[in-house]
Order: sequence, then structure tokens, then C-alpha cells
Amino acid sequence: MDTPFSDRIADVPQSFIREILKVAMDPTVISFAGGLPNRDLFPIEGIKQATNKVLDEHGADALQYSNTEGYPELRQYISDRYRDKQGIDVPIKNILITNGSQQGLDLLGKTLLNEGDDVVIEEPGYLGAIQAFSVYRARFNPVPVSEEGLNIERLKGVMLSRKPKILYTVPNFQNPSGISYSEQNRLDVAEVLEGTSTFLVQDDPYGDLRFAGTEKASFKKLIPDNTVVLGSFSKTVVPSFRLGWIVAPDALMEKLVIAKQAADLHTNYFSQRIIHQFLADNDIDAHIKEITDVYGRQRAAMMNAIDEHFPKEVAITHPEGGMFLWGALPEGYSSMDLFDLAIKEKVAFVPGQPFYVSRQEVNTFRLNFSSVDEETIETGMARLGKVIKTLLSA
Amino acid sequence: MDTPFSDRIADVPQSFIREILKVAMDPTVISFAGGLPNRDLFPIEGIKQATNKVLDEHGADALQYSNTEGYPELRQYISDRYRDKQGIDVPIKNILITNGSQQGLDLLGKTLLNEGDDVVIEEPGYLGAIQAFSVYRARFNPVPVSEEGLNIERLKGVMLSRKPKILYTVPNFQNPSGISYSEQNRLDVAEVLEGTSTFLVQDDPYGDLRFAGTEKASFKKLIPDNTVVLGSFSKTVVPSFRLGWIVAPDALMEKLVIAKQAADLHTNYFSQRIIHQFLADNDIDAHIKEITDVYGRQRAAMMNAIDEHFPKEVAITHPEGGMFLWGALPEGYSSMDLFDLAIKEKVAFVPGQPFYVSRQEVNTFRLNFSSVDEETIETGMARLGKVIKTLLSA
Repeated sequence: MDTPFSDRIADVPQSFIREILKVAMDPTVISFAGGLPNRDLFPIEGIKQATNKVLDEHGADALQYSNTEGYPELRQYISDRYRDKQGIDVPIKNILITNGSQQGLDLLGKTLLNEGDDVVIEEPGYLGAIQAFSVYRARFNPVPVSEEGLNIERLKGVMLSRKPKILYTVPNFQNPSGISYSEQNRLDVAEVLEGTSTFLVQDDPYGDLRFAGTEKASFKKLIPDNTVVLGSFSKTVVPSFRLGWIVAPDALMEKLVIAKQAADLHTNYFSQRIIHQFLADNDIDAHIKEITDVYGRQRAAMMNAIDEHFPKEVAITHPEGGMFLWGALPEGYSSMDLFDLAIKEKVAFVPGQPFYVSRQEVNTFRLNFSSVDEETIETGMARLGKVIKTLLSA
Repeated sequence: MDTPFSDRIADVPQSFIREILKVAMDPTVISFAGGLPNRDLFPIEGIKQATNKVLDEHGADALQYSNTEGYPELRQYISDRYRDKQGIDVPIKNILITNGSQQGLDLLGKTLLNEGDDVVIEEPGYLGAIQAFSVYRARFNPVPVSEEGLNIERLKGVMLSRKPKILYTVPNFQNPSGISYSEQNRLDVAEVLEGTSTFLVQDDPYGDLRFAGTEKASFKKLIPDNTVVLGSFSKTVVPSFRLGWIVAPDALMEKLVIAKQAADLHTNYFSQRIIHQFLADNDIDAHIKEITDVYGRQRAAMMNAIDEHFPKEVAITHPEGGMFLWGALPEGYSSMDLFDLAIKEKVAFVPGQPFYVSRQEVNTFRLNFSSVDEETIETGMARLGKVIKTLLSA
């Protein structure tokens, strides 16, 4: 039959990354293309103990339907942690548990965006946000990020000429670039946004994964009325639970809960109970330190290999946390061409193109260091360095 | 700040049922208002064994990110079961795992509906579907259901005057009414739909919960090209996992996967692995028989109590499975008035109003029998009968 699809679904960019990950699944390929946490660090035994405890003590409760907002004790844990770690007061009524922070993006699109509404997005920016907001037919206004943070002049320009509903940011160890906004940049961004009706979305899946430098202020502290924070347990505990949350002001939260109920009633409650039990019974900060120690070493191995194997014309970012760094070939070279050569040499990464809403041919590329061990990083980066030299000398 | 919400979110009916459930949470109230499976039947021990096995044998795999479509072995299990139980061939490429079947509704709205597109919905119809499609600003065309099934003349009328994208049905033990479409009614509905570009959505969360009568043909067998089936483990295994699935033809499935990825990347993979292990290691048909034996007895207790305590002017449906039955006061009486009286007598149900898209004041009401034991059913129905007599004699 002739299928009459909605207009919106035609607008969503296909995840080119999915195709790349398929190519990179060849076991002889060393892949820096993924975005996976290091599976060797998953707390399998702790999850097992938490699960057995939940089933032994609260079995029927933990297996029944639950409420849309999420398990109150888990939301209380999140609230307490914001208070203890960042000095931010977030009552649990302002916390909604979601299926990963990706669902937070979908719910924000649903509750805020009419067709053609303006969204400001970082360039390069997170592909999942581009996809989520494309579903609601947003008009994207890219603002460049550099190692300082958002380009303030460009942001001011967009805020003058448009009335964006959303400014989407990943200020800590951004995906794809690894960049963090400086303290001054955060103050400048906050000043531009304050008093407007634009929501600043601080997507913060990596915020806890700092292995260098010092913590910067959350936008929730700087401009609380305008700020929505997305959090996640995927990078600090386990990804497969798909447990994230959204922090939003009262009026928006009321709409988000309606949208969440219509979307899937509530998030997997069994996993909410397990993760709460796990967090209650374990020292999560010690666990996070274990993760950041490993990622810090892997990032160092990658930077060292870049020093050794990459031509000096290749620029890179210097992440203080998270899972990614970002490279740039000299102007005029295509990272897609580099990808084609690299696959032949059995090494993979993600070309920059899917992270831009306004450009097709780019010289940038993303490297993931969290899911590859140090020795393999050295081998893979040597291969990649060789391929880059071939490309640049062609 | 002045929050600029989307137009769509204003259209979603608030879940009036949530408010009712809050009132009904008073422990002195006997509630037939819920829609919960009987928690005494949850296979806690089986889930525990399956979880430990998954964590012991595949811990890191089961805790990592996974693919959008869902765990292939779980989809294979679902495919095998369609073949074995219903003689239907559903390749796994046509099965997408969702966060309960509610998410299937959201993804269908997303991929199919432009603002103002026509959707045919049963009257009374499932509130969750009304909510999900309201988000995409559907125009609802209600078609009445009776104990035979959909009103064919009304369906033909709508199909002539509109080009609906979706006909939404719950042909087995409908929520809210408990009605099942007869074999002849299914053939008639299929004949009306065949050759059109309308998708018939067969939402089938209760299909396995038959305690009387004989199984009827799936629309997937009658008009496979037009049929989308939504399935769920919530009623046969456990609800808190939020595990459902959607069966769709190739072209639609391709769009559903794009929408699913943008919505939340993938469904909780840990729970997919556990439920697959549970299904592999246990006799699910024996477990379902245990459930239907209990629900069958609870339904009989409710029907007996109705015979004894309700005035004869109250009409009721005669469900052969599922979790609900449906009552109708004589014309002119309001089930909302009845609710107000009933709460004072410490008994609750859901007034029919939220299940209609075109009527505000209705004489119908929903009774749930799955989550209340036989003795309590007798006590509660005696209270309700007394309240009905008071209302009718006022």
C-alpha cells in the first residue's frame, strides 16, 4: 500500500553514525567511532546485589506499574546530589525520570516547539539533539563553539534576530568536541539569556567525568528560571538501563509530565528501583573516580599518540573530561575522504559532517577514547596518523 | 518567565484517571478504578533467576548500550510465538521493541500524523491512544463499539467522507469495555479497510488473557498490508519493565526506527535480556493459564455480585478475557454523579467520560476486576449496588 507518512518524519536526518558503526564492527578495525562507556568498568556485582535486594524485599512493588514522574526516592537522591555537589536547590517536583536524556530532548521538543520555531544549537553539536528537534521541525540556528565555549557575538546576533525557544548546550566535555565552556563564557551566555523567554538546555551526561581542571558553574545556578538540565546515569553507572532525568521549572514540568504520560506512561520502574538501591549501597564517587582515572589515562594515551603520529597541521581539542576529542584537518581537506582511506587501514572514527546543521563537507572528525584500551589506542592512532599523512601529501 | 509552549501540548487531555486513582488510593476505599494486573501473580522468583543468569553469563553485554530495534533474540521469540500460536509469519525485521505499547502509539502518531489528519477511534476508546494521537493534533472520528464489535455502517461512513491515516482498535477484551470483536465483525472491518491506505492498529495487550470463548482471527492475518499490531509483556509477565513491541510493514518500520532513535535511542536493554531469559527458562503458557484462571474467577465474582446487587436497569458487558467490564446506567443518569456518591460509600470506579472524544456527560463506567480479590469484589460491588439504587431512586 501507498504509505502516507507525516511531513515531520521526512525531516529527521538518518543517523549516518549508525552506518559508520556498522562498518566499524569488523573486529579487525580499531574503532574510535563509537560513543560507548568502557564496559570493563560496569559494576556488575553491585547491580546484581542491588537487584536481588530489590526483588527479595520489594518484589511485587518493583514489578508493578508506577507513576509517570518516576520513583520518588530516586528523584530525592538526584535532588540531594545537586545540593551536595553543586550547591543547587532542586526540589523533586522539578525532576522527571526519563528513558535516558535523549527522551528529555524529545519531550522538550514536544512541549515547546511548533513547526518553524527557532532553536539555537552548538556547531558542531550533538547529533541526537539535532534528530530530536528535527522531529518537531525546528529551524536550527547554529552558533560555533571553540575551546572557550559558545561564540557570544553570534549568540547575541541570533537572540536579536530570532526568538529561539531553546538554546541547546553541552557545556561540559561536549559531544562531539570534548570542549567545555569557560567560567567567563558561562557568565556571558547567562547574561545574554537572562530575562528572555528562551530555555537554555544544559545537557550534562558527562559532567561527572572530569579528570583534569576545575568544575565550572551550572547554568542552573546562573539563570535558574531559564535553565533546563538533562542528567543521565548512562555514563556513571550503566547505559542499558536508559535512565536519565530532566530538571525543569514548574510550568514546563507540568507539560513535560503530560507529554511523558502520552509517550510511554512511565520509565522502566524495575531499573529505577535497582539503580536507587545500587546508589544507596555503594560509594558512587569512588566508582566515578575509577572511571575518570581510566578515561584520563586513555585520553593521555590518545594525546601522546597524536603528538607522535599526527602531522602538526592537524588541530585538536584538549578535553578535561568526558569521552571524546575533536580533530581538524587543514582547511580544504575532507574528513569523509579521510574516513574512506582509514577504513582500508583498519581504523575508524566519525567524520564531522553529521554534527553540523549547515555544512556538508567538513575537515573535522570525532575520536572516542573511552571504549578503547591504551595499547590499542597507540596502535590505532599510529594507523590513523599514517593515513592522515597520506591524505595531506596526496 | 513567560513560557512559550507548543500548540500541540495544549490539546492533550489531562489524565482525569490519574486524579481518580489518587482519590481511590485511600486504603478504606475498595477500588475498581485501576487498570493494574494482579501483583500476587508476578513471577518474582523467575525474574530473579533470569536476572542472575543474565548478569553472571552476559553481565557487561547486558549493561551496555544496544541497538534501536531491540534485542534480536527477544524479537525472534516474539516472531516464533506469532507463528506457533496464531499461524502468522512476522519476520524480526518487522518487530521493534518499545517502552510498552504506549510508546508504539506515540511512534505511530509521530511517523504518520500531520496536524488535522483523521484518526478513527472506538467509542468508548482507550484513553492512552486518545492522548498519544492528540499530541499530533489528530482529528478524531469516533465509531461506536457494541458487544459485536465496531459499528460497520459508521465505519463505512467515515471511510467514505475522510481518508483516515489510522483506525485504532482493541479487538480483544477492549479497554475500557471488555468487548471483543466477533469473527464476522473482523471480516467486515477487514473488507472495509482492504485496499485503502489506512493503517488498522490492533492494540493487543490483553489478547493472551482469554478465560472463556474461542480465539478470533488477528487483523494481521486478514489484511496484513494494512495492519500494525502492538504487543506487550505488561499483562503476561510484568508491567514495570515497560516492554512492548510494534509489528509493522517494511516501509512504516523504517520510519518507526528513525522515530524511535530520535525519541530515546533504544528500549532498556537489561530488561530485554532478562525477559528473554525468563521466557526461555519458564513455561509462559502455564503462567498465563494461572493468570487467566484467577482473572476468570474474579470476573465471575464480579458478574455474580452484579446479578445480586445491581438494579436490572444497569446494562453490562460480558468479557471473555482481559481485565475490565463496562456498565451503563439508564439513559439520562450520569456516571460522574455516581462516582461522587460512590466515593462517600468507599468504593471507586472510572466514569466513562474520559473514554469518549465527543461526549462530556455519559451514563457509562468501567470496572476493573483483575486487581481485586473475590471476597473484596463481593463487598465492593454490594456497596456500589447500593449507591446505584440510591442514585436511580433519587
